[in-house]
Amino acid sequence: MEVTNKYVTLKTHVEGAPKESDFELKTSLLALSLNPGSGEMIMKNLYVSIDPYPLNRMKRYCSSQRTGPGFEGITRQEIEAYGVAKVVVSDNVEFEKGDVVVGVITWAEYSKIRRNKMIRKLDPLGFPFSYHVGILGYCGLTAYAGFFEICKPKRGEKVLVSAASGSVGNLVGRYAKLHGCYVVGCAGSKQKSFFLCLFLSMDGYFPDGIDIYFDNVSGDMQEAAVANMNTFGRVAVCGVISEYIDSEKKAAPDVLDVIYKRMKIQGFLAGDHAGLFQDFVSTTSNHPHSGELCPLEDISDGLDSIPFAFTGLFWGDNIGKKIVKIAKE
Amino acid sequence: MEVTNKYVTLKTHVEGAPKESDFELKTSLLALSLNPGSGEMIMKNLYVSIDPYPLNRMKRYCSSQRTGPGFEGITRQEIEAYGVAKVVVSDNVEFEKGDVVVGVITWAEYSKIRRNKMIRKLDPLGFPFSYHVGILGYCGLTAYAGFFEICKPKRGEKVLVSAASGSVGNLVGRYAKLHGCYVVGCAGSKQKSFFLCLFLSMDGYFPDGIDIYFDNVSGDMQEAAVANMNTFGRVAVCGVISEYIDSEKKAAPDVLDVIYKRMKIQGFLAGDHAGLFQDFVSTTSNHPHSGELCPLEDISDGLDSIPFAFTGLFWGDNIGKKIVKIAKE
Repeated sequence: MEVTNKYVTLKTHVEGAPKESDFELKTSLLALSLNPGSGEMIMKNLYVSIDPYPLNRMKRYCSSQRTGPGFEGITRQEIEAYGVAKVVVSDNVEFEKGDVVVGVITWAEYSKIRRNKMIRKLDPLGFPFSYHVGILGYCGLTAYAGFFEICKPKRGEKVLVSAASGSVGNLVGRYAKLHGCYVVGCAGSKQKSFFLCLFLSMDGYFPDGIDIYFDNVSGDMQEAAVANMNTFGRVAVCGVISEYIDSEKKAAPDVLDVIYKRMKIQGFLAGDHAGLFQDFVSTTSNHPHSGELCPLEDISDGLDSIPFAFTGLFWGDNIGKKIVKIAKE
Repeated sequence: MEVTNKYVTLKTHVEGAPKESDFELKTSLLALSLNPGSGEMIMKNLYVSIDPYPLNRMKRYCSSQRTGPGFEGITRQEIEAYGVAKVVVSDNVEFEKGDVVVGVITWAEYSKIRRNKMIRKLDPLGFPFSYHVGILGYCGLTAYAGFFEICKPKRGEKVLVSAASGSVGNLVGRYAKLHGCYVVGCAGSKQKSFFLCLFLSMDGYFPDGIDIYFDNVSGDMQEAAVANMNTFGRVAVCGVISEYIDSEKKAAPDVLDVIYKRMKIQGFLAGDHAGLFQDFVSTTSNHPHSGELCPLEDISDGLDSIPFAFTGLFWGDNIGKKIVKIAKE
């Protein structure tokens, strides 16, 4: 048996901000059978997470230390992403047809993967599958680990979150509130307004300064936050949305502030905090039921919508976690 | 009894790099007597530490959060500095005439201080007084706390130290070596050569990348170091010599590097690590005897030499700890 598999790929390396015309929709025929002993698996993709970081691998010049091997060929490769899928054919003893799985899939209707891919069976815990791409998935862990492990918040501390309507920022704001912190989130459709809305009103929102800045944007915002931080302030550096599309606009926080205020500026990746996953899931999954932590999702329909959904991230088009629903469950 | 007290003060606020002509030598008559109950003390100053940080308070525009109160009047004030002195008259029960003390004195032949000043009796431990202004003083504690507490080095790690012939950098290099690290120090007479000597040869000196960067200069050097750091690299931000004199040249390390390499960039002040003082002194004082940690001192003679000694710091004129000997012991 054979299916027609639609997938999204890059026509050309991206320069600056990604455009829809950088991508193309292709189709190929995919045999729904595997060589015995191959350890492979074919999955029908259901939901895919739309995140900014794949942009790194779509650019021509890029440090291999950052992005791992395989960059050279990205214009000819399927594009990887975190998502939920259903197993259609399996030559892997750990999975069987019909299993719902979560992990690294591709921007495609079907993904064929090897044994070593990061995929695990999904226990939906009574929640919609889309939750496991966002609030209970990798971006949820990013918010949880970044806020609790990197920022080490104390009750009553003053927290600033940038890109606060985005997938991670939105959750950080909620965790901070649940933890008894004072929180100001900032969001805008363009990087310039991120900056302006905060820089102009920082005194008003933070008359006593900022203790924690959860940075999803970098650039001017980071500089403005550092200038307003308190002694022993912490900056968790999570994203650089303003620099992804304008590499000239780099954050240059005042180093004298960093010294005199004894600040810590720390980058992190959720993958290093996988040990927190159970804590994270049990803490977080208690809240959607009570309504305190209801997810903010922005779901588009159909594989064809991926290029629009992805490019929109860089202009702040999404409100909450951007997800594309590829197929019905 | 009365003495003529020579002291150095600022004629005008400093713009950019300090010039000798920004300072003037003044004299005043000082009565060597105190009002009973005043708690005051008059000291004859012996050695004074020459450090870059007082420059912050010499500029017209400066955040009070950084420098503490009293900035406005600095052109009319005596300039504070760390040093060793001998008590001449005391109305403070904790000190008596002839005591040798260490702490905050002034750029003067004699300092009259109140009870609340940071002064303690000095146990010379068999070392020359000058050691207690440098290797066994505040700049030694800065090197010790910054390297061991902020960088948390492991044996065999690769360490880069900027301004490595300066007072703190020199000690950090030695601590790193004693701790079994691979160390490269960089020094030059101008910030540009700091940058060039490293940027051009970073691959040669660090074929396996940098684990720890002890930053005394900021600017281009910090950017170059961050670009060459390993995963989980640490940057201790101690000084900004390149930015003190050129506020336009701010470090803008690549934030994607900071995230993907999960780096920590941390500012610190030795004062927060006073609890380490005994450890620091006992660790450090074992070494001058064995010759492993012999101090690199750059001592000028006489109060008059302070303006030249201070301004020279910003051009890298000093080799090792810059000290001015004000009077014979």
